[in-house]
Amino acid sequence: MSSSPADPARYNSFLMDLLGVMAYGELSAFERLSSDARYSPTLHDRAVLGRIAVIEFQHYELVSARFEEMGLDAEAAMLPFQPSVDHFHERTRPADWYESLMKAYVIDTVSADFYRAIARYVDAETRELIERIQSADEATAVLRERLKRALADDPRLAARLALWARRLLGEALTEAQRVGFEHAFLGGLSGRDAAGARELVSGLTAELAANHSRRMTQLGLAG
Amino acid sequence: MSSSPADPARYNSFLMDLLGVMAYGELSAFERLSSDARYSPTLHDRAVLGRIAVIEFQHYELVSARFEEMGLDAEAAMLPFQPSVDHFHERTRPADWYESLMKAYVIDTVSADFYRAIARYVDAETRELIERIQSADEATAVLRERLKRALADDPRLAARLALWARRLLGEALTEAQRVGFEHAFLGGLSGRDAAGARELVSGLTAELAANHSRRMTQLGLAG
Repeated sequence: MSSSPADPARYNSFLMDLLGVMAYGELSAFERLSSDARYSPTLHDRAVLGRIAVIEFQHYELVSARFEEMGLDAEAAMLPFQPSVDHFHERTRPADWYESLMKAYVIDTVSADFYRAIARYVDAETRELIERIQSADEATAVLRERLKRALADDPRLAARLALWARRLLGEALTEAQRVGFEHAFLGGLSGRDAAGARELVSGLTAELAANHSRRMTQLGLAG
Repeated sequence: MSSSPADPARYNSFLMDLLGVMAYGELSAFERLSSDARYSPTLHDRAVLGRIAVIEFQHYELVSARFEEMGLDAEAAMLPFQPSVDHFHERTRPADWYESLMKAYVIDTVSADFYRAIARYVDAETRELIERIQSADEATAVLRERLKRALADDPRLAARLALWARRLLGEALTEAQRVGFEHAFLGGLSGRDAAGARELVSGLTAELAANHSRRMTQLGLAG
């Protein structure tokens, strides 16, 4: 815990990175999911992805408000993370609505795990913000149930979606590690040295992958 | 006023058309605006269009909730309007973020005028729904101010945006009239015969065009 960080300026700079990547991640997930929504099989399904996209935007606004409270520039904090996040989305363009649905589910659950892990290392106010953002488990449940139904309706989807989910996870972890190398905020927030930070990142990566695998098994897919 | 319609079944069928076109219009505006947001000049501007898109989605959800209350199928009500609305969007693809901004402004203001005009002919509950949806003048003000600023920053934009806004209005009115011919709900709700309905539609068209022209003049553009 570093609720009262030893070096406030240093802590704030790491915090700005964390909030910056969160904010840009939410904003771009909003845009991608809402454009994907148009390819949904039914109008009802369009609204399902739309609703998830709106929740992402509301998260973006919560992080934005925190920037304002702190007197920090959200744009400056987000910009360094734009290339990695955009690159992730470019590398993971869904071929159809089912792949969009899976992408929404993977982004939603893996980033929730990531933020929950990070929440241990931040001040009480930031932790509260992270918890508010992660309390939208309702969205996750909607996605999971819709995926289950799609897989029950068309069992041939399983092989394709299992492969797709594995690729999504791989790309997400690759980008996360790239971000981790370029921006040392994870080590910084946890107050560890370079070796400690590497250990933290690799432990976190393993944890995210294990959780993802468990969720895929619950969907009846090979994790 | 037809707060207690003479023929409830007939009235409900017209109402279903009205709510159907509203719901599909809001849902597709949400998707188009949020995908357009990605091409914004700054991250701050991306959030501006994103916020407007989210308001459209919330309107869609209000109309959706009304369908549920009435025990009606929103999907069945929206489907007949999908071709016209999609056609409008296909014919009006913004070339850049400024054109997206103008498109958002025109859709927002012209549909507000349209719904306000229609509100005279519907039952109290539907009227209340329309008023709730149209109370988001905050969004309109944000768009107007951002457009004003863009025009002040780059006066060369004026000619292009004036032309673009004229095209948007033309396409919107064309689609509205097409919808008006295919679906007689406007005449139906107002309780007029075919000639009366035509008169109503042409009066409404003129009113929408005049209001649009006044708003363009306020922006310093040739209406």
